[in-house]
Amino acid sequence: MADSQFDVLCIGNAIVDVIAHAEETFIGDNDLVKGAMTLIDAERADALYGRMGPGMECSGGSAGNTAAAVAMLGGRAAYFGKVRDDQLGQVFRHDIRASGVSFDTAPAGDGPPTARCLILVTPDAERTMNTYLGACVDLGPEDIDETVTAGAKVTYMEGYLWDPPRAKDAFRKAMSIAHEHGRKVSLTLSDPFCVDRYREEFLHLVEREVDILFANEDEIISLYQAADFDEALQHVRGHCEIAALTRSEKGSVVISGDEVHVIDAAPVDTVVDTTGAGDLYAAGFLHAWSQGWSLHDCGQAGGICAAEIISHIGARPEANLKDLMQAALGRS
Amino acid sequence: MADSQFDVLCIGNAIVDVIAHAEETFIGDNDLVKGAMTLIDAERADALYGRMGPGMECSGGSAGNTAAAVAMLGGRAAYFGKVRDDQLGQVFRHDIRASGVSFDTAPAGDGPPTARCLILVTPDAERTMNTYLGACVDLGPEDIDETVTAGAKVTYMEGYLWDPPRAKDAFRKAMSIAHEHGRKVSLTLSDPFCVDRYREEFLHLVEREVDILFANEDEIISLYQAADFDEALQHVRGHCEIAALTRSEKGSVVISGDEVHVIDAAPVDTVVDTTGAGDLYAAGFLHAWSQGWSLHDCGQAGGICAAEIISHIGARPEANLKDLMQAALGRS
Repeated sequence: MADSQFDVLCIGNAIVDVIAHAEETFIGDNDLVKGAMTLIDAERADALYGRMGPGMECSGGSAGNTAAAVAMLGGRAAYFGKVRDDQLGQVFRHDIRASGVSFDTAPAGDGPPTARCLILVTPDAERTMNTYLGACVDLGPEDIDETVTAGAKVTYMEGYLWDPPRAKDAFRKAMSIAHEHGRKVSLTLSDPFCVDRYREEFLHLVEREVDILFANEDEIISLYQAADFDEALQHVRGHCEIAALTRSEKGSVVISGDEVHVIDAAPVDTVVDTTGAGDLYAAGFLHAWSQGWSLHDCGQAGGICAAEIISHIGARPEANLKDLMQAALGRS
Repeated sequence: MADSQFDVLCIGNAIVDVIAHAEETFIGDNDLVKGAMTLIDAERADALYGRMGPGMECSGGSAGNTAAAVAMLGGRAAYFGKVRDDQLGQVFRHDIRASGVSFDTAPAGDGPPTARCLILVTPDAERTMNTYLGACVDLGPEDIDETVTAGAKVTYMEGYLWDPPRAKDAFRKAMSIAHEHGRKVSLTLSDPFCVDRYREEFLHLVEREVDILFANEDEIISLYQAADFDEALQHVRGHCEIAALTRSEKGSVVISGDEVHVIDAAPVDTVVDTTGAGDLYAAGFLHAWSQGWSLHDCGQAGGICAAEIISHIGARPEANLKDLMQAALGRS
């Protein structure tokens, strides 16, 4: 196996987040699904944006957040995702590259604009996401750079890639290339509603294709339609080489064969906005894994990164993640 | 004099802020003027953006920030400023309207894109602004709505309006309409370098036209080329009906005829980003003034709003300004 060119390649929907504070009543009044990611069309996006309060724009996208954080941790990160050649696309491109991520997916020259996610943050710090996929619908197998994929230690992909029409073909192509070159494939289940939409395909992936699985409690329970977390945990054992299951303030559980690690959550002063918690957990975990750390330490690294992101608005890190990791674990 | 339709009309450069953290060395390495607002052309903006870290986009513009805050305080606010009909223009329009401001200036249908200000926030919380004026160069007298101007208790304008070619004509037209209808005209000197650029014109305005002047210590010293703040203060006495002079952590001094009020700064836990401090001081002051509060209370109201904005990133309020004012002064 050739030396790796990248530690972590992330593939996902390239999205600019539009974040606004909202009262609890706004969620009900606008028929939003609290805490979930709901897909919306252009018309609904315009209407909802018109009713939202003043916003703040930050680059986002689940796997994009993960890639940015891996790079900020000092890892070699690459990203594939589709924007349009418009102002928000320029913002996305700038931000991910400025984080240190290699990003060269060609922007769409026509068609829908760069994707945006309208995020309402309620006083309980919960985020409710409403995604207009825009240019993401143009991501296809032609956007999977074979050399980059073959040269990445792990290729990490969002379950959300099952939403746009051709992105799952891109996903499958990347998975094949990675495995052909002896690399690992990692998946996040993304969202319990996303799991509902694609349960059979996700079960197949988890059982046969995915080496490193990320899921939160709701997602893994949904995948197996289990009664509780413990039942879901018994199902996932043995299916993936590694499963990292996050449980919010209860920390995470990492499983690999007979190994089970129960890891406490990292401390947080005030939870401000939970957007990106799972993305950052994956970043810390995969960065640590790519450096050969123990699974216990990978889980801890994930928790430290998740704690940073939920302590402020937005899903891209503000603090120096390397310094945080160094302070907490004595290495980064 | 007819009843007023608006409490405060604000006119300024309509700008989207792009805010990034930067190390102290970045300022010197890129020949930036620390703490100031420097005008840059499109080419320089592209080059600087390319070197900046990941950003966060927030609507800004000095008078735009003031208008948004007046509306959030419960005042009736209107705004005139020029964006283009592009994505950042839509962001600006959305945000100011969502704050409760009446904003109907027609966007430019061609020409340069919506203005942006590349803001570097250094670890000392100081902000260094680099403004590409873009579509702001298209603001002209035709954008001054006579009915709105005639119906606003006070028309507040930025000194920055002297930068784009035709905005000063818009400024003069608005000033004439306001005075013809017995309304007040207010000016902020904006920036000491801006004062350097237009000292003679600003002196003329302050001596003959402006009713309510806002300036910080550096700006008022620059205007009169005075040796110190006290000397500048003696110059300004008698020139304007009201002068509100801000002094950062030393609070503010409000002068009107023989009245002089020295007002302590409102407490701040941690200063995070000083962007918008002057804009928010003006908002609190003018809102209080439009309700007939005493000058002392106007100064206090300004200080409370300034304290909110410097405690977080961005120049549009995050906390409920009405509640803050109510808690601190027992009314809003």
